[in-house]
Amino acid sequence: MHETIQDGAYVRIYLDARRTWLRKVQAGAAFHSNRGIIHYDDLIGRPYGIRIRSHSGQVFEVHRPTVTDIQVAMGRSTQIVYPKDAGMIIVETGIGAGSRVVESGTGSGALTWVLSNVVGDSGHVYTYEVREDMYRSAHKSLSRFADMDRITMYCKDVRDGIEERDVDAVVLDLATPWEVLKTAHEALCPSRVLASYSPTIEQVMRTCKALREDNRWGMIKTLEVLVREIMVREGKTRPPTWMVGHTGYMTFARKLVAEP
Amino acid sequence: MHETIQDGAYVRIYLDARRTWLRKVQAGAAFHSNRGIIHYDDLIGRPYGIRIRSHSGQVFEVHRPTVTDIQVAMGRSTQIVYPKDAGMIIVETGIGAGSRVVESGTGSGALTWVLSNVVGDSGHVYTYEVREDMYRSAHKSLSRFADMDRITMYCKDVRDGIEERDVDAVVLDLATPWEVLKTAHEALCPSRVLASYSPTIEQVMRTCKALREDNRWGMIKTLEVLVREIMVREGKTRPPTWMVGHTGYMTFARKLVAEP
Amino acid sequence: MHETIQDGAYVRIYLDARRTWLRKVQAGAAFHSNRGIIHYDDLIGRPYGIRIRSHSGQVFEVHRPTVTDIQVAMGRSTQIVYPKDAGMIIVETGIGAGSRVVESGTGSGALTWVLSNVVGDSGHVYTYEVREDMYRSAHKSLSRFADMDRITMYCKDVRDGIEERDVDAVVLDLATPWEVLKTAHEALCPSRVLASYSPTIEQVMRTCKALREDNRWGMIKTLEVLVREIMVREGKTRPPTWMVGHTGYMTFARKLVAEP
Amino acid sequence: MHETIQDGAYVRIYLDARRTWLRKVQAGAAFHSNRGIIHYDDLIGRPYGIRIRSHSGQVFEVHRPTVTDIQVAMGRSTQIVYPKDAGMIIVETGIGAGSRVVESGTGSGALTWVLSNVVGDSGHVYTYEVREDMYRSAHKSLSRFADMDRITMYCKDVRDGIEERDVDAVVLDLATPWEVLKTAHEALCPSRVLASYSPTIEQVMRTCKALREDNRWGMIKTLEVLVREIMVREGKTRPPTWMVGHTGYMTFARKLVAEP
Repeated sequence: MHETIQDGAYVRIYLDARRTWLRKVQAGAAFHSNRGIIHYDDLIGRPYGIRIRSHSGQVFEVHRPTVTDIQVAMGRSTQIVYPKDAGMIIVETGIGAGSRVVESGTGSGALTWVLSNVVGDSGHVYTYEVREDMYRSAHKSLSRFADMDRITMYCKDVRDGIEERDVDAVVLDLATPWEVLKTAHEALCPSRVLASYSPTIEQVMRTCKALREDNRWGMIKTLEVLVREIMVREGKTRPPTWMVGHTGYMTFARKLVAEP
Repeated sequence: MHETIQDGAYVRIYLDARRTWLRKVQAGAAFHSNRGIIHYDDLIGRPYGIRIRSHSGQVFEVHRPTVTDIQVAMGRSTQIVYPKDAGMIIVETGIGAGSRVVESGTGSGALTWVLSNVVGDSGHVYTYEVREDMYRSAHKSLSRFADMDRITMYCKDVRDGIEERDVDAVVLDLATPWEVLKTAHEALCPSRVLASYSPTIEQVMRTCKALREDNRWGMIKTLEVLVREIMVREGKTRPPTWMVGHTGYMTFARKLVAEP
Repeated sequence: MHETIQDGAYVRIYLDARRTWLRKVQAGAAFHSNRGIIHYDDLIGRPYGIRIRSHSGQVFEVHRPTVTDIQVAMGRSTQIVYPKDAGMIIVETGIGAGSRVVESGTGSGALTWVLSNVVGDSGHVYTYEVREDMYRSAHKSLSRFADMDRITMYCKDVRDGIEERDVDAVVLDLATPWEVLKTAHEALCPSRVLASYSPTIEQVMRTCKALREDNRWGMIKTLEVLVREIMVREGKTRPPTWMVGHTGYMTFARKLVAEP
Repeated sequence: MHETIQDGAYVRIYLDARRTWLRKVQAGAAFHSNRGIIHYDDLIGRPYGIRIRSHSGQVFEVHRPTVTDIQVAMGRSTQIVYPKDAGMIIVETGIGAGSRVVESGTGSGALTWVLSNVVGDSGHVYTYEVREDMYRSAHKSLSRFADMDRITMYCKDVRDGIEERDVDAVVLDLATPWEVLKTAHEALCPSRVLASYSPTIEQVMRTCKALREDNRWGMIKTLEVLVREIMVREGKTRPPTWMVGHTGYMTFARKLVAEP
């Protein structure tokens, strides 16, 4: 028996790459688009992964949202770390099931959500957000989607210090990451990885300068990720005309320890 | 007390982005490079993340390898799914701690290793490899690095069928992925994600054609990931002259189920 | 004395990268935008390169259009060979002042215009267009901007043959370039370059296959050009979020001659 | 009668994209490669565009060098403006046959050569080089390939002033372009284009800052060009693994004039 769509669950309704929605199923209500209406009652009790026809005859796919689908939906109102960049942060920090990760700021909670899915029940995500409105909004979003046993949320300025020690990774998405390097160094286990995400090159330059001057960070590198789609259609295969050309740069560094 | 470097452990010795090595520490032996020698006895018992001076005065960093460091080392002799692509596969399939994933072929075992770190003890990776030499070599590599309780290895042609059912993702790195779509569909839980990795555009075209004709796959898309490094050095910040311009295309699709 | 803006001349009015217009100056008329009105009478007789304030106080720049500005304006209604791609065609074919170039199809005439500026009075562009409406429209556009002494326009199907011989380059922007290889070979001087522009990968594959099978073409290569802008603003330098991810592939080949 | 290969002429000998040479034909001498020897006497008097078999049976193509082939060869010993970037400079400055262009520094003369082919006999290139050794070496190279009637070479520090007035474009390839903006402004015709080529982002930032502060430049923009090859081979079509990831950034600006 597969899981079926329940009242209150989230579904990803999909027509094509540009026309796709994440919606909460509500008994008695309906999904409206300019390609037709789908009554949620027609979804409840049925499996994910079905095709359904709207009243106007348009066929939609109805999917169980992936972790990334929810990440994107959580970040709709603020700028988020894109999935492509989250994937790079995961592989470059080397986190996995069981890892303990510190993140700041929480922002929309979208990356917190992704990290909490990677670290699982045997790991933990500690996330710091200085703005109370963001903290509250992220708390609300995360409570809806995430297993909160895996997440500790602080409404605190991370510049005042990270409480955790010996963590496996520190992930920064802050306007001034260079102010947090000292506390990040204290929090990290030796040889573990700091990741810092910044949209501008000046932020990257200042962060790298601070890392070098601190002289306790190794393997410093900065990169960006570009994803290019290819529309594979018989006889008309080509990349789309427009693509995302920039989101943010990611700087990685590993904690060095003084020779005893 | 932090973990210290033990005899038999692996270390990543780092001079700069181009001169870096993954080595197994062996009491009594030494690491040789043209920038000097490091005696492993000088590492044993000391923490990861130290700087050490070779006999010729060159300072090296000695790190605990990340999951990705080991992935790259495992794949040295064969073509592997690059870390950048592995990150994209993780976020697009939405796997995390607890996921059950089928992979084929095993190849060098490098991606198996990455996946096993993501799914953790509560998840599982089932990996199929038809070539016995590859299977044996991957088994040896994985036994060295991975927790084998998380991994089931088959020396089988995946075209003869996947034994698992209701898995969270099927990841294909095969020359002819279109031959495996039927069995992949049977193995997947509804609405879960197939990922197929191919270096050539003809493979992508044929895979997408087969997915469309099968008519039981939704949200089909193909993309590639480009990573661009930026060398941040005061007054000389710029990307490197050369970059990796292509590894492979990734096609993703979600399992649709017939309306009952 | 510099040239001044005349009644009937074209100007490029510029506010920022996204708000810029090519307009024909008309005495008594005015340029209207949602940032204000500029009366053309206020431009006539003044030099290019001035800043002018609209009635609502917005400052616009008024420029003499470059060759590329006009190219882009000519191609507004149809798909054109982008300036980035025109630049690559110029350098890869090696044309310059004095070159004789065959082009097909004429399309909007935008590339004809660019080529005619490169070849100058001592060179010539021969352009073939099968569709009469396109031919007429291009003729009208080119008559407005170009020196028609440098251009010969044919309303003909280029598949019926190129009349010229010993030309320095043949530039194809056709749906089925492989049908024209034979006549292009006849038209080219030995060792000179064919350039073919195609938006889809299937067109590229078929063109390259035909070139190889013809066995009289050398140095075959295919490439695409990506342009990435960087918005340099103090403290906020970064590429724009969106960029053009694909226009067309360009295939180049040089005419081989049989050993006599 | 087509032109034939003469003693003293240059030929491009081509095996594949990676094994290609520009050589001067010398009667009595031979081209040596590890794929065989070609005696130049076997080329003299024959047409360009032939296939020739080396003594060891390898077939080479022998081509007439294009402008770009020679550009690349001229720049072999120093860093040059790549063809892809030269193409972008041509289209963004809008130069063509008849244009008068100032360039500094001359460097290897490779870009001077390209520009001189674009501007033709009715245009002119004025090029400034401060280093006497570079000036001499470029003079020697250009005398070999270019029509020197189209080129005026100065061994001068361009910071001491450009002598020309009302030129159509100023092209800078200098370590400190911001020091030359004033003299470039004086040299340019109103509304004409300055192009500045710089490998590092700090140079770009400083140039753009100086342009903005000068307040007499409009339409300022910075971009870079990426070229991606696609190896089209039946059943194995894909981009190459490595590509050129960075050469230089190009900043363009148009001369504004004060309202009289």
